[in-house]
Formats: sequence, C-alpha cells, structure tokens
Amino acid sequence: MTGKAKARKGAEAQGTLIIIGGHEDHSGDRVILKEVARLIPDGRLVLATVASHEPEGYLEKYQASFGELGVNDVTELYVEDRTEAADPEKLKALENVQAVFFSGGDQLRITSQIGDTPICDRVHEIFAAGGVIAGTSAGASAMSDTMLVRGQNASSFRVGDVRMAPGLALLPNVIIDQHFAERGRIGRLIGAVSHNPRVLGVGIDEDTAIVVRGDRFRVIGSGAVYLVDATGATHSNVAEADTDAALSIYDLRLHVLSAGDSFDLRSRRPEHLPDPKDG
Amino acid sequence: MTGKAKARKGAEAQGTLIIIGGHEDHSGDRVILKEVARLIPDGRLVLATVASHEPEGYLEKYQASFGELGVNDVTELYVEDRTEAADPEKLKALENVQAVFFSGGDQLRITSQIGDTPICDRVHEIFAAGGVIAGTSAGASAMSDTMLVRGQNASSFRVGDVRMAPGLALLPNVIIDQHFAERGRIGRLIGAVSHNPRVLGVGIDEDTAIVVRGDRFRVIGSGAVYLVDATGATHSNVAEADTDAALSIYDLRLHVLSAGDSFDLRSRRPEHLPDPKDG
Repeated sequence: MTGKAKARKGAEAQGTLIIIGGHEDHSGDRVILKEVARLIPDGRLVLATVASHEPEGYLEKYQASFGELGVNDVTELYVEDRTEAADPEKLKALENVQAVFFSGGDQLRITSQIGDTPICDRVHEIFAAGGVIAGTSAGASAMSDTMLVRGQNASSFRVGDVRMAPGLALLPNVIIDQHFAERGRIGRLIGAVSHNPRVLGVGIDEDTAIVVRGDRFRVIGSGAVYLVDATGATHSNVAEADTDAALSIYDLRLHVLSAGDSFDLRSRRPEHLPDPKDG
Repeated sequence: MTGKAKARKGAEAQGTLIIIGGHEDHSGDRVILKEVARLIPDGRLVLATVASHEPEGYLEKYQASFGELGVNDVTELYVEDRTEAADPEKLKALENVQAVFFSGGDQLRITSQIGDTPICDRVHEIFAAGGVIAGTSAGASAMSDTMLVRGQNASSFRVGDVRMAPGLALLPNVIIDQHFAERGRIGRLIGAVSHNPRVLGVGIDEDTAIVVRGDRFRVIGSGAVYLVDATGATHSNVAEADTDAALSIYDLRLHVLSAGDSFDLRSRRPEHLPDPKDG
C-alpha cells in the first residue's frame, strides 16, 4: 500500500504518535523522553534526522539521553537527497523497527526528501502495525495532512503570511505548530485554520507533547497546548482580504491544555483527568 | 470627585479612548495618528511621557508627526516623582486641555507616579467632559481597572507569571496587552482573564488601535486585535495549580478583529462593517 493510501486510513491507525513542541528536556525530569522510552516496545529506536541540514551531534545527544532511559539501540536515518531516500540500503535501517523519532530542523526537508518514497511508506507501516512515531519541532509539524511551513514572524500576522504544504499525513484533520510561545505563533495558527475549519489548530509549547492514540491524545511535559477550533466561526476575511491585510475572524473556540488534560479529536472536547494526588 | 469615584462612572463616560498597541506608524499612512488628530477638538494635545524613565526626544517626535496633521499645540507633561505630580504648577499643563496622549515606557511608572494625584483626577475630568485620552504601549496597558504589568516572556506561560496592578480605570471590565505579536503574549493574556472572566482580554498588535466610545469600539491601523472571552470557560486550573504549573482552561471564545471591525463591550459581540468599496 502506498503512503497516500495509508493516509486515508488515519482513523484505523493502531500506533502511537508523540508530537513534541521542540526543546524537550534532556537533563532534568525528561518527562517526554521517558514517555517515548516507556512506549518503545523493544528498546530500539531509529532517529530520523532528515529535517536537518547539519545533523552532526544529534545521534550522540539522543543516544546518551535514551541510553540512560533503557533504550540502548538508537541508530540514525539520514538522507542527503531523494536518490538516497530511494536506496534499498537506507530502507534496511527501518527493518524490524517499531519506533521512529523525527528530530528538528525544517519540515520541508522531511517531506521533500522522503515524501512518497519507500522510507515514508515504511514509516506508515510501522505506525499502522502499532509502532511509535515521535517528532519534535519540525518533526512535529510534519505529522499532519497539511503542515505549516516556516513563515514570517512579523509584528502582526497578514492573511498572506501562512505557508502550508502537504505533510506526512500520520494525523488527519489537524495542523500543528511548535515552539508556540515564539513571536507571532497564535496569529499564524489562527490564520491557518481559518483557511479550512476542518483542521483543528494545535499549538505546542517547548518541552511539551501530545501522545496520540486513535482519536484521543493526552498532554505531557512542562508547558501548554493551545487548541484553536474554527468550526463555529461566524465570519472570516481570509478569502476576500488582500494578502497584506490583517486577519478578521469571529467566534473561535480556544482550549489551553497542560499535563493532566486529554482531548477527543473526534468530538473536539477536552477532558481533565483529576490529579491522583487529590484522590 | 476623586479618580476612584470616576472609575465607577465608566459606563456614563462621554469621552473617547484611543488605545494603541505600540509602534504606531509615524512616517507612512499614519492612520492612527490621523484619527487622533481628527478627534482632537481644538488642535491642542498634552503628551504625557510619565511612563518613560528617559522621555528625551518623545515630544519632538510627536510634535513633528502631529504638526503635519494640523495639531500644532503639543506640550509635554512629565513628572519625576509623586511630589512633582502633586505640584499645582504641573496641573496647570492640563488646564483647558481636551486631549491627552500617554506615550510608552512602563505602565507601573504611570500608575505609581500619578495614581490618585490631582493629575489623574484631571485626566478623568477631561475624559468625562467628552475629551480624548489616547495611550500607546504602556499608555495602552494603563487604561483598564486592573492592568497587566510587564512579566516573563518564558518559553511557556506559568500560572504564576501574570503580574497585575490597579490601572487608571478609564475602561472597566477589560485587561489590555500590547505589542501582541511578541513572545508569549497570548498565554499571558489568557492567564490574566482566567483569574476573573469578568474582564475581557484585549491584545492589540503594533500599529493597531481600538477607538472606544461608550460601550463600543472600532479597530483601526494595520494589525489585529485579539479578544479573549472566558465567560463560558468550563474548567480552569488557575486557583489550584502551583505557580510554576502550565495553564489549563477550556472553552474560551476568541475573536480576531482588524480595521473595519467593531465590537460591543456590553454584549461582547463583534460586528463587521462592510467595506464601502463593496457597496
């Protein structure tokens, strides 16, 4: 089955996605890396550094962090270009693997280098077979059907400032942004969802992640996740306005979630799980 | 009547507030300064530079910009400390004045230097008599009953990161943030309104302003205004969480307004005024 066919199967997927807003902690509590380690079935992880132009040092960093958490077999998958991505030797790196972690860089490098290649198909297969696909920063953005591409961080968001592109299609009906406390992120995410409220906007802070299984996710890590739901929007200027116009959109629903909260992607409802300490 | 008594009269106020998100354009279209100039009844404006520790150059800049727009009598009101703020000589600067413009700096300097002084009472009198009170950046933040004080711009917002203080109380039931595309602003504004959904969160981009008369405002300038309404919020952790916890709050209503949009502060509903070009 091709990656495209797999994408349509999103709702039936059996695997787990761990989508991280960047800068996950490597030296303190390491809540997020611990959760990745806990979910890896066999102590084996492939670090896909394809988002980066200069992935030197990434493997050593993750080997050290995961090694201390019991994941002792961390190997790297890097491709220089699409020819390499089609090389059967590269594909061997994903044989008998049940967990892949996409590190940061540029999400367009991920999709332009491995999109529609056997590597991408294999990632979908691992996911469909119940494996773990994690991604941080650019690796988080790339998870959705349509993804945000790095754009302007201007002093105010312009209707034409959103750049989007086809993503890896592991999680349908969302659009993900990361490092969400950075300049201009809320405007860009609202701008993106205003294009089609079918997609839920998911803005993830640094050192914060959502752990997705089926239609539900829960939040882990130290920061917050912002969910922008434009389903009920009563007005938007995105189709009519000039590209340099400021955005106008009414009646968005916004949820802010943090550790202990979960969310149903189908009903688009949050749920608070009581702190066990209070029980 | 004291400033405190005036504050309670907010709804009956007859004047106009022009609340600017900072960095209003001084060299291009100057949409915001033109609107201030248009609304000044008598070509006379007092520039209150009290927010700044070093107001050198502010007067000359605003004199030049407003001079080209027909406001030829721009004088400065600056106070070094509270003793000066109580000086009858300083108060003379506000005699027969119908328009005051608070420039940027630190909103705590505005309130700590002139709060509960005759100068502050006189500003309220000018407003109640139908005058114009404008403020940019710190001068915008200071307009509300309770105002945001400059705080952390951390990589993710913490429940304890909001610092608030009593403001000038010219506009009740809102809390204003400015330079709204800057790092971390949406988290801080949501955090502030979560403390008491009585206040509407108003986040104003640079070179963007709201022009308030009575219970309504309209948006002018090049950017957007973000309105965060927590009235319908169904869950919040602000009272229970540790100060270093991330925020959790569900079911906020969010509107993004830009030039051409107006808003009713009483019903909390936006309204789009059709572009006359389309008529």
